[in-house]
Amino acid sequence: MAPINFNLIKKEGACAARLGSLKTPHGDIETPIFMPVGTQATVKAMTPEELKEIGAEIILANTYHLYIRPGDKLIGRLGGLHKFMNWHLPILTDSGGFQLFSLGELRKIREEGVTFKSHLDGSSHFISPEVSIAIQESLGADIIMCFDDCPPYPASRDHVVNSMEMTSRWARRCKEAKKRDDQALFGIVQGGMYPDLRQRSVLDLCETGFDGYALGGLSVGEETEVMYEILESCSELLPEDRPRYVMGIGTPEDLMEGVYFGYDMFDCVMPTRNARNGMLFTSFGRLNIRNACHAEDPSPIDPLCSCYVCRNYSRAYLRHLSHSKEILASRLNTYHNLHYYLSLMEGARKAIAEGRFVDYRREFYAKRDGRGN
Amino acid sequence: MAPINFNLIKKEGACAARLGSLKTPHGDIETPIFMPVGTQATVKAMTPEELKEIGAEIILANTYHLYIRPGDKLIGRLGGLHKFMNWHLPILTDSGGFQLFSLGELRKIREEGVTFKSHLDGSSHFISPEVSIAIQESLGADIIMCFDDCPPYPASRDHVVNSMEMTSRWARRCKEAKKRDDQALFGIVQGGMYPDLRQRSVLDLCETGFDGYALGGLSVGEETEVMYEILESCSELLPEDRPRYVMGIGTPEDLMEGVYFGYDMFDCVMPTRNARNGMLFTSFGRLNIRNACHAEDPSPIDPLCSCYVCRNYSRAYLRHLSHSKEILASRLNTYHNLHYYLSLMEGARKAIAEGRFVDYRREFYAKRDGRGN
Repeated sequence: MAPINFNLIKKEGACAARLGSLKTPHGDIETPIFMPVGTQATVKAMTPEELKEIGAEIILANTYHLYIRPGDKLIGRLGGLHKFMNWHLPILTDSGGFQLFSLGELRKIREEGVTFKSHLDGSSHFISPEVSIAIQESLGADIIMCFDDCPPYPASRDHVVNSMEMTSRWARRCKEAKKRDDQALFGIVQGGMYPDLRQRSVLDLCETGFDGYALGGLSVGEETEVMYEILESCSELLPEDRPRYVMGIGTPEDLMEGVYFGYDMFDCVMPTRNARNGMLFTSFGRLNIRNACHAEDPSPIDPLCSCYVCRNYSRAYLRHLSHSKEILASRLNTYHNLHYYLSLMEGARKAIAEGRFVDYRREFYAKRDGRGN
Repeated sequence: MAPINFNLIKKEGACAARLGSLKTPHGDIETPIFMPVGTQATVKAMTPEELKEIGAEIILANTYHLYIRPGDKLIGRLGGLHKFMNWHLPILTDSGGFQLFSLGELRKIREEGVTFKSHLDGSSHFISPEVSIAIQESLGADIIMCFDDCPPYPASRDHVVNSMEMTSRWARRCKEAKKRDDQALFGIVQGGMYPDLRQRSVLDLCETGFDGYALGGLSVGEETEVMYEILESCSELLPEDRPRYVMGIGTPEDLMEGVYFGYDMFDCVMPTRNARNGMLFTSFGRLNIRNACHAEDPSPIDPLCSCYVCRNYSRAYLRHLSHSKEILASRLNTYHNLHYYLSLMEGARKAIAEGRFVDYRREFYAKRDGRGN
C-alpha cells in the first residue's frame, strides 16, 4: 500500500485551483493547505495544542537543523519526531538542500554530496542524497523530500542546467536509498528562473516517479511575476493525481496565486518570523504593531478576525508587550498570524468546494486594497 | 463596606500556619497563596488562561515598571489593568518602593519622595507616597501597597531606624492620599534585620491601621536563619484578623517556613525567572534541564507531577528546546515551575484544613532530601 493517498475531490472551472484530500500515516489532511514551519522540532512560540486549535493539520520540520541538534539518531531512539515534539498529526521534513544552499561559503557541493560546516560550532559534516534520506528516516516524518541542489539567483543558464541535472540524478538516488514504506517521498523541481529548464526538471522527476512533486528554489530574489510564470508553466506539466507543493513561499498573495495555479501545499516562515518582529497580517493588509499609532488603540488586530488574540487583546496591549520584549508578544502575534494564514487557506478550500474560488480571490484583493467587498 | 474581607478559617494547632479566605472585588482567594509575578502586565511566557489552568488566583504587577511603560494613565484610560492584560481575577500592585531601591545610584531618597532616572531612557521622575497611590489607583488593582523605603543590607542601626520611621510616615501619607474605596491598602513592615525595629514598625503600622500587612526588605542578602527569625517575631505581633504577606520570597523552602510562621501571601520571580534559565523545581529538589545527563532522558521533569508539561514532554525534548533557545522552552519551563509553586501551596492549604500541616512540611523536606515519605 502507498504511504500516502491523494484524492482529487474537485477542480475549479475558471482556473487551475483544486480541492483534494491526502491520507497519511498520521491522519488525513485537506488541500490546499498551509504548513506552519517547526524548524527545530517546535513551531516557534506555539504548543501543539494551539496549532490544532487554529486548524493546523500538518507541520514542517528541518532535516539540517535536527541533524545538527539534537541529532536525528537521538530523536529516532526516543521514538521519532512525532513523539519527541508531542505532535501526533502529519509532519513533512525537508531534505536539508535549501538550508545547505543558505550556508553559502560554509558548504562545498560535489556530485557525491555536500560537505559543510555546522552554523553552530563549525564542525565538518557531509550530507548526500543517501544521508539525507537516512536522516529523514530516523526522524520519521510522513512525507520526506529528495535532497536537491538550489542554484543562486541570478545564475547562468549553464550553472542552472548542471544543477538541475544533478538534482534529477540525486532524486533517483534518494528513491533508491529509501527503505521505510510508511513515508512518502516527494521530488523537488529545480531549474532556476528558466521556464524550459523547470519543465525539463518536471519531466525528469516524473519519469523517475514520486509520491508528490515540489517546486524548490523559488522566492530567492526573483520578481514576483517571474515566480508566478514558473508556477503556471510547471503546473500544466505536473501529473494531476499527485500532490503539488510550493516550497518556502510566501506572502498571503503568493498563497492565493499558488492555489490559483493549481498547487496544494505551502510552507513559509513569514507568518511566524514576522510575528516576532511585530508585523501582523490582517484582512486589510499588514500592520506593524510597534508603531506609535497603536499606543492607545483599544481595537483588536483585525476586526474581521475571530481568533483568541483578536477576541481578548487590544492593539495597545500588544504594542506594549512588543515594546517590552515580552515572550507573550511573540506568542500572541504568532498565534494571530498563523491563524490568518490557516484561515485564508480554509476559506480557499471552502470556496473551491462551492465553485467560487475566483470570487474568493477577487474579494481577498479588494479587501486588502480597501475597496470593500 | 471594606474593599476586601479576610476570614480566618482555621489555625493549625502545632504551629502558626493558618487557612483563610480573602474576598476581593475581582473574586475570592484562599490563603496561604502564591502570587505569580506579572511585572510588565504579563506573567512572563504565560497567558491568563494558562495561569488559571494551573490554579493561580491572584497575580502581582509592578507599579514602577507600568508607570514607566506604557504609563499608568494610559492603562487607566483603557479601563484599568485587569482589562488591559485580560486577567479578570484579583491583582496586587506593589508600590514601586523596592524597584526604586534596586535602581541604586539612579535614585535619590528624601522625606518628600524619591527622584530617579528611568532604567529605560534615563529620563527624570519623582514618586512620593501620594504619587505611588495615584499610580496604583490608575492601574486599579484589588490590593495596593504603601510606598516604602527599603534599606540596603547590611546597614547601620541608625540608617535603618531613620528609614523605618520614614516608611511609617509614608504609610500614613498613603492612607490619607487614597481615594478609591474598591482597593485594599496594605502597610509594609521594614526595619532591616533588627528584630526590635521590625517590631516597632509593626506597631507603628497597626496604629495607623491597614487592610493587611506585608513584610518588605527581606531576601536582600541576609542569612536564611535571620530572615526566618524576622518572620517568626513579626508574626507574633501582627493582628490575626488581617492578611499577612511576605514580599519577594522565595524558594519552596521559604514558602513552607512562611506558612509555618503564619503568613498568608507570597510572591517571587524565582519560579518564572529560573524557568527561563532552565532551572526546574521537582519534588526531589532542583535540576538544570540544560545538563548533559538529560540529553536522552525520556522521563518527565518530575515523575510525581501531573502538569501539562510533565504529561507530554521528555527531559530530552526540554533540554533540546532550552539549548536551541526556543520560546517554547521558556513557556514549558515556566508552566511547570509555576505549577510546582501553586501546587505546593494548594497542598499546604489542604494540609492545614486537615490539621496535618506539620506532617506536610516534614514530608516536603524528606522527599527533597531523598529520604522518601
